[in-house]
Amino acid sequence: MRIKVINPNTTQSMTDKIYDAATYVARPDTEIVAVSPEKGPASIDNFHDQFATLTGLMEEVHKGVKEGFDGFIIAAACDPGLYAARQIANVPVVGIGEASMYMANMVAANFSIVTVTKSIKPLLWEVVERSGMKDKCISIRCTTMNILDYEHDPEGGLHALTVEGRNAVSEDGAEAICLGSAGMVKFAKNLEKELGVPVFDGVTAAVKIMEGLVDLGKKTSKMSTYKYPEKKEYKGFPGIQP
Amino acid sequence: MRIKVINPNTTQSMTDKIYDAATYVARPDTEIVAVSPEKGPASIDNFHDQFATLTGLMEEVHKGVKEGFDGFIIAAACDPGLYAARQIANVPVVGIGEASMYMANMVAANFSIVTVTKSIKPLLWEVVERSGMKDKCISIRCTTMNILDYEHDPEGGLHALTVEGRNAVSEDGAEAICLGSAGMVKFAKNLEKELGVPVFDGVTAAVKIMEGLVDLGKKTSKMSTYKYPEKKEYKGFPGIQP
Amino acid sequence: MRIKVINPNTTQSMTDKIYDAATYVARPDTEIVAVSPEKGPASIDNFHDQFATLTGLMEEVHKGVKEGFDGFIIAAACDPGLYAARQIANVPVVGIGEASMYMANMVAANFSIVTVTKSIKPLLWEVVERSGMKDKCISIRCTTMNILDYEHDPEGGLHALTVEGRNAVSEDGAEAICLGSAGMVKFAKNLEKELGVPVFDGVTAAVKIMEGLVDLGKKTSKMSTYKYPEKKEYKGFPGIQP
Amino acid sequence: MRIKVINPNTTQSMTDKIYDAATYVARPDTEIVAVSPEKGPASIDNFHDQFATLTGLMEEVHKGVKEGFDGFIIAAACDPGLYAARQIANVPVVGIGEASMYMANMVAANFSIVTVTKSIKPLLWEVVERSGMKDKCISIRCTTMNILDYEHDPEGGLHALTVEGRNAVSEDGAEAICLGSAGMVKFAKNLEKELGVPVFDGVTAAVKIMEGLVDLGKKTSKMSTYKYPEKKEYKGFPGIQP
Amino acid sequence: MRIKVINPNTTQSMTDKIYDAATYVARPDTEIVAVSPEKGPASIDNFHDQFATLTGLMEEVHKGVKEGFDGFIIAAACDPGLYAARQIANVPVVGIGEASMYMANMVAANFSIVTVTKSIKPLLWEVVERSGMKDKCISIRCTTMNILDYEHDPEGGLHALTVEGRNAVSEDGAEAICLGSAGMVKFAKNLEKELGVPVFDGVTAAVKIMEGLVDLGKKTSKMSTYKYPEKKEYKGFPGIQP
Amino acid sequence: MRIKVINPNTTQSMTDKIYDAATYVARPDTEIVAVSPEKGPASIDNFHDQFATLTGLMEEVHKGVKEGFDGFIIAAACDPGLYAARQIANVPVVGIGEASMYMANMVAANFSIVTVTKSIKPLLWEVVERSGMKDKCISIRCTTMNILDYEHDPEGGLHALTVEGRNAVSEDGAEAICLGSAGMVKFAKNLEKELGVPVFDGVTAAVKIMEGLVDLGKKTSKMSTYKYPEKKEYKGFPGIQP
Repeated sequence: MRIKVINPNTTQSMTDKIYDAATYVARPDTEIVAVSPEKGPASIDNFHDQFATLTGLMEEVHKGVKEGFDGFIIAAACDPGLYAARQIANVPVVGIGEASMYMANMVAANFSIVTVTKSIKPLLWEVVERSGMKDKCISIRCTTMNILDYEHDPEGGLHALTVEGRNAVSEDGAEAICLGSAGMVKFAKNLEKELGVPVFDGVTAAVKIMEGLVDLGKKTSKMSTYKYPEKKEYKGFPGIQP
Repeated sequence: MRIKVINPNTTQSMTDKIYDAATYVARPDTEIVAVSPEKGPASIDNFHDQFATLTGLMEEVHKGVKEGFDGFIIAAACDPGLYAARQIANVPVVGIGEASMYMANMVAANFSIVTVTKSIKPLLWEVVERSGMKDKCISIRCTTMNILDYEHDPEGGLHALTVEGRNAVSEDGAEAICLGSAGMVKFAKNLEKELGVPVFDGVTAAVKIMEGLVDLGKKTSKMSTYKYPEKKEYKGFPGIQP
Repeated sequence: MRIKVINPNTTQSMTDKIYDAATYVARPDTEIVAVSPEKGPASIDNFHDQFATLTGLMEEVHKGVKEGFDGFIIAAACDPGLYAARQIANVPVVGIGEASMYMANMVAANFSIVTVTKSIKPLLWEVVERSGMKDKCISIRCTTMNILDYEHDPEGGLHALTVEGRNAVSEDGAEAICLGSAGMVKFAKNLEKELGVPVFDGVTAAVKIMEGLVDLGKKTSKMSTYKYPEKKEYKGFPGIQP
Repeated sequence: MRIKVINPNTTQSMTDKIYDAATYVARPDTEIVAVSPEKGPASIDNFHDQFATLTGLMEEVHKGVKEGFDGFIIAAACDPGLYAARQIANVPVVGIGEASMYMANMVAANFSIVTVTKSIKPLLWEVVERSGMKDKCISIRCTTMNILDYEHDPEGGLHALTVEGRNAVSEDGAEAICLGSAGMVKFAKNLEKELGVPVFDGVTAAVKIMEGLVDLGKKTSKMSTYKYPEKKEYKGFPGIQP
Repeated sequence: MRIKVINPNTTQSMTDKIYDAATYVARPDTEIVAVSPEKGPASIDNFHDQFATLTGLMEEVHKGVKEGFDGFIIAAACDPGLYAARQIANVPVVGIGEASMYMANMVAANFSIVTVTKSIKPLLWEVVERSGMKDKCISIRCTTMNILDYEHDPEGGLHALTVEGRNAVSEDGAEAICLGSAGMVKFAKNLEKELGVPVFDGVTAAVKIMEGLVDLGKKTSKMSTYKYPEKKEYKGFPGIQP
Repeated sequence: MRIKVINPNTTQSMTDKIYDAATYVARPDTEIVAVSPEKGPASIDNFHDQFATLTGLMEEVHKGVKEGFDGFIIAAACDPGLYAARQIANVPVVGIGEASMYMANMVAANFSIVTVTKSIKPLLWEVVERSGMKDKCISIRCTTMNILDYEHDPEGGLHALTVEGRNAVSEDGAEAICLGSAGMVKFAKNLEKELGVPVFDGVTAAVKIMEGLVDLGKKTSKMSTYKYPEKKEYKGFPGIQP
């Protein structure tokens, strides 16, 4: 199967690491394609940035539909554009935020999200609520590094995540950790060793769930919420042109 | 005071009616400017359309900030882009969805939303939940006409809204009605007469709440969620350019 | 328009300050009348006091209906008697508790309430829940001064509010503050300067929302919950006498 | 032990029936005193009426405290004044609304409330929420008879309750019924026979729970919410006079 | 009346103390029989232990039904097997967890549970949620002693409970305490004296509620959830054998 | 990898079909072993039956741990014994109830569960709540056939499921269907064709999620809730014997 992983920001170095992580866990018969859109922000640190991804993201889904991919993964922890993407694709579209939380919840009674600076917190909380994980996510712990800081200073990044991960376990009672950014996929293994609890990265979780959905032949429901948008005029947005 | 009302879709006839309604209820010392963005969908009927508004909408907020407006009203019932708009403005930004529901809740113990076709329902429910009105909104009743149908056939529109409004009152026990589209502002008066309960249109509700916020000198909190986005590179989106 | 502001306690010095604040923000064409009932407690610090206001409060609403007021504001943060007042008036009745929270929620992603001694906390939490603001109100912070202490020692009062307001912002992550007593209207401006976040006083918020509701010609829904009480015998209470 | 049962309305014929029912189920060593206050409404059909009971109700609690009762039962299904009564008594105070629901929940997986006209519904829903029974109470079914109608036409009353009780069981899936008015205590037995599910009347439920609380020597917590009101001036209300 | 109290673990010394406590508060006309099942764990400290009680527990209920008991009390704070027991008995079955919380909620505005080691916490939280007490239970505080430790070192047990009880009152704002284990019945009196708030033990609370249910002649609803299981083959479990 | 699928009831014909379905979707490198315990009920139709599975189920997990399986699937839609099984295994344990709902939620905005007779409904609702799917599951529709009826009359079974599935889609607005019994795995394909929405069977969903968890090397968190039970005496239950 062929899976298109869309990193909704324009930082190619992150896309490369996402590709590596996704490929590493994918089955031999799964082909991973990872892209950044042409339009969008360098990173997603707040609501404004999240909305800045949507045009570019939808362009990539549109292209992907024509290219015949078997599934799409949106590789940002705040799951931007998920519902709209499901409208224009009939193959499954999985967000890495929801994927990591569902998997965490099946091996632990609760989890904390450890993430970047605090402006991202309300975005991640929206994912938690939309995914039904409000009673499972006992805390969202922020560090003082933003997403690009984690790119430029991975050592400092691992340290910051370890500190907050430990606080999550010892103070909040977290029994698992979900990483609150696609750029943190590289830290998961080490962090798991440090903390002694399962650590879930969304990219790898989403790849495995997608393989399952495709194996089962599941498609996105076109019954109502995710049905194709009606034809109408869209200016500057990849709608289905009239 | 000067208020910029942004109709996030590109249908100028709707913007004109929104302008008329807003001006009609505004105080003499309130100047209303109503615009449609250059980019965006002809109407918002589902998630995909909602996301299609965001680039154009943000461009209008950006322009408005430079033009020194005292407040912004986002004139679509699903309150698109509200949080991001609050990040880049420091004057108040009010959504017509939340405005109509808060006002309804102060003269009635509950309300129903009467709106367009059913694909809009999950978007409106998101507004209900984000505004804290989950226990107040007892139903969202859809018609079989989409937003543009209401533009082209206002008589049929009034009829459809009256039928569903009556059902809301008699079957669901609604004690007030909120109109679930900016394009319905023209029906509010007649509907109120027909149904015998208060009917709230979001545009006029938002104008009055905005006048209050500006009178009190209130600004958007820049403490955390709505603080200005950090400078970074945005491609194809009106971020604060580096 | 003519608005009757009812301070449900019998302390005239508080009523005077409420009158000043309401008048200060009212439009030139809005006439404010502020009263204390003849019956009631000197202040509201707990459930018992809240219930002690109801007879006097309803008497003032009854009188106000005959006097032809265009709206009523109940000027206690716990919004006492709100639903019953709405039953006997057909013009709008707004509580200062709900008014401050709705306005706060439109310029900030969350808020804390800063208030008097802790016995008031469960009353304010009832307002939060009834207004749908449970997910928005992240904390209610109490001081060790009761309402009358704030009357007698305003300097100490400002200090106490500043301390707890700062704790709300720095420890709880509050992005706005709502003042949890009508008697605190005089502190709002200074507090806003000190804390750097929007501070909402309920009296002024309610005046502006009331002006909006009256401008829009809205009346209280008489459909079910707020319909006029049936005629029956009431002993010692201003019911509609048989 | 001596239990004071306060029917918060002034209709003595209801008080008499409440006395009979309470006495019938009380243990031989339990003395029941049942009273109506001097002030208050003839019946409670809506919020306005509920608030009209509070002065008279509190006067009866005050008197009862001096008379040394071992417990108080507030005999109206909307549990009026419960928290304030707990403040001025240190013996237990039980509402018949909460009592019936807790007992119902221990012999059935859910219940419906069957009650008077629909204006009472929001009051009963407040009891449901405050008692934590939101997920247990699957419906509140109203009849077209108000409380005094049930006094004057008991046969019609039993018929109306049977019809709605049957609907609750067959349409809503109710596995027990709680009666939504103190005046319905006389119908419980017959209704139980008709419907084939447990039917709980609040008066008798409250008597048995009160006997248990008194046997265990439990007192109302004076730690915070229910502590005695501070001394202050109350005009026209039985506060602790200065 | 004859009440069968089933301690679902196999530690007879606990059963003996449960018997003593139940007998002490029971009325003269109430006969208490207390048993431990033949099968089951020595104590319940986690989910695994809870499930280990079910076969033995159901065997005791089955026997008790044949012996004609008037009610059953399941004497473990996590209320194991409650719903299944209600299926096979038609007399009332009360759990000590729910019983203590309902009583606490009638004399205090909230409560904390003080209990054994932290592995029990998620089990008790399930009881809190199932009983509707989610908004009433403000904390579950654990000690470092497990259930059998409390048997062997009662002095240390009282000390540990006092420390955590004090923390619950002063830090969490608890206005009552519920004891989170049947084995703690012996500490209730002393703890109440130490803490100055009502302390509820589930065994004694359940006895009094059961006496009330039996006095009122209430039976378990056989309408749906608690109806008798259909006849089918059960291997190694006391189902109704074919 | 080797996965042990435990059908907690003792009906071998169901176990055989579960084996076939699991094997059909498993990857070539995944070995499925499917078993029924020696102890337990012939089917699970209510709480009593659910509890009747636990001893036999835990015996199979214990055996499976010694046999070195890489994961366990509990193949009953009510996910019996899930938390206890996670305590004694350190490899992942997945319930088919949660698995089907998480997958459904990723291709549809909501879902209905279609299942056997109504006594199963409260058990399935517990799974919905525990899995966080309360806002996603819009209805649980029951048929009049119990689990064994579906074994003996598959044609009638498919018909009953189709009828209720259609009702779920057209009346409740379901956008996907989850099958509420392991014995329905054989109907999924046909039903999907009939209904035009994705239909999820839990057995196949769980197999794919398990393959993903094992691929990622995830283990059950032993931090707190799912840590191994302490050694103590268990009579008649497969605890870790002293």
